[in-house]
Amino acid sequence: MNPALRKTAFLLVAGAVLAGAIALKAPAFGYAADDAAPVYVTKIPNGFRDWRLISVAHEEGNLHSFAAMLGNDVAIEAYRDGKLPYPDGTIIAALHYGHVASEENDKVFGDPQSFVPGPPTNTQFMVKDSKKYAATGGWGFGHFNKDGSLGTEAQLKTCFPCHAKASRDFVFTNYAP
Amino acid sequence: MNPALRKTAFLLVAGAVLAGAIALKAPAFGYAADDAAPVYVTKIPNGFRDWRLISVAHEEGNLHSFAAMLGNDVAIEAYRDGKLPYPDGTIIAALHYGHVASEENDKVFGDPQSFVPGPPTNTQFMVKDSKKYAATGGWGFGHFNKDGSLGTEAQLKTCFPCHAKASRDFVFTNYAP
Repeated sequence: MNPALRKTAFLLVAGAVLAGAIALKAPAFGYAADDAAPVYVTKIPNGFRDWRLISVAHEEGNLHSFAAMLGNDVAIEAYRDGKLPYPDGTIIAALHYGHVASEENDKVFGDPQSFVPGPPTNTQFMVKDSKKYAATGGWGFGHFNKDGSLGTEAQLKTCFPCHAKASRDFVFTNYAP
Repeated sequence: MNPALRKTAFLLVAGAVLAGAIALKAPAFGYAADDAAPVYVTKIPNGFRDWRLISVAHEEGNLHSFAAMLGNDVAIEAYRDGKLPYPDGTIIAALHYGHVASEENDKVFGDPQSFVPGPPTNTQFMVKDSKKYAATGGWGFGHFNKDGSLGTEAQLKTCFPCHAKASRDFVFTNYAP
């Protein structure tokens, strides 16, 4: 090959590699990439409130919290198939509310025994992308306040160390049949 | 009209009325009609575990119960639009589980504070069909044991008198945003 052709071939190959790299960086799972904070989930995934149910949860201690965990299609399939680790594209949403007594229900039952979701408190997400979030077990973590704003860096950096203690690929929640 | 023609015309009209009656009796909302117990829901609606989330609930007293309420598309639309009474075709599912401590989560938190669904206990349904279930507010009630079998008549007949005390068209559960 003469030097001019060799240079042209090099540029073509370099261009193709660059194009591939750009394609790999494009958001693939319905959330937008944010280069300023690449280790966290910084945009609320579209349509999460329509996702199917994984399970429910209730935290006491200082939290008095009620949660519903929803999953996108990749998450629900992985849960139902018992697939571990969760595949890239998995998104798990945790919708948190206060855990409050229902005055209306308690009047009907005749006893204080019925608890329902109070006002929403926050919504959290785990997004599996083994390349983008390689430094945190392949999971990106997101915390959004009730007004939809992103949690602080101080909040966001507490997610991974705690989920690192979960026994099933950084996930605490089991599937409720 | 001569008597033979008149008789033929009568049979044609009677046949058409009968056909219409049969068409009206066909199940319209994905559950099967059961003439033996027309006031209750006696078949589990297809695919209910894939329905979207309405809300969650927790009952103490003698129940120690965790619930997720799911709705079919008609139910979710009615809830989101604040439509009352619920339109025919609405189905609300209540998936009940035990409310149990999570040993795994409590170890991570360092305090006994985390509650998760235990084994399923039963699944209940409310099906809106204002004609079929006219005697019970337009709602058919169903209770299915954890093995999928239908609850007893004694169980089923407790549903309506209690739901009659709910303030929003016989439904206790509000939508969790």
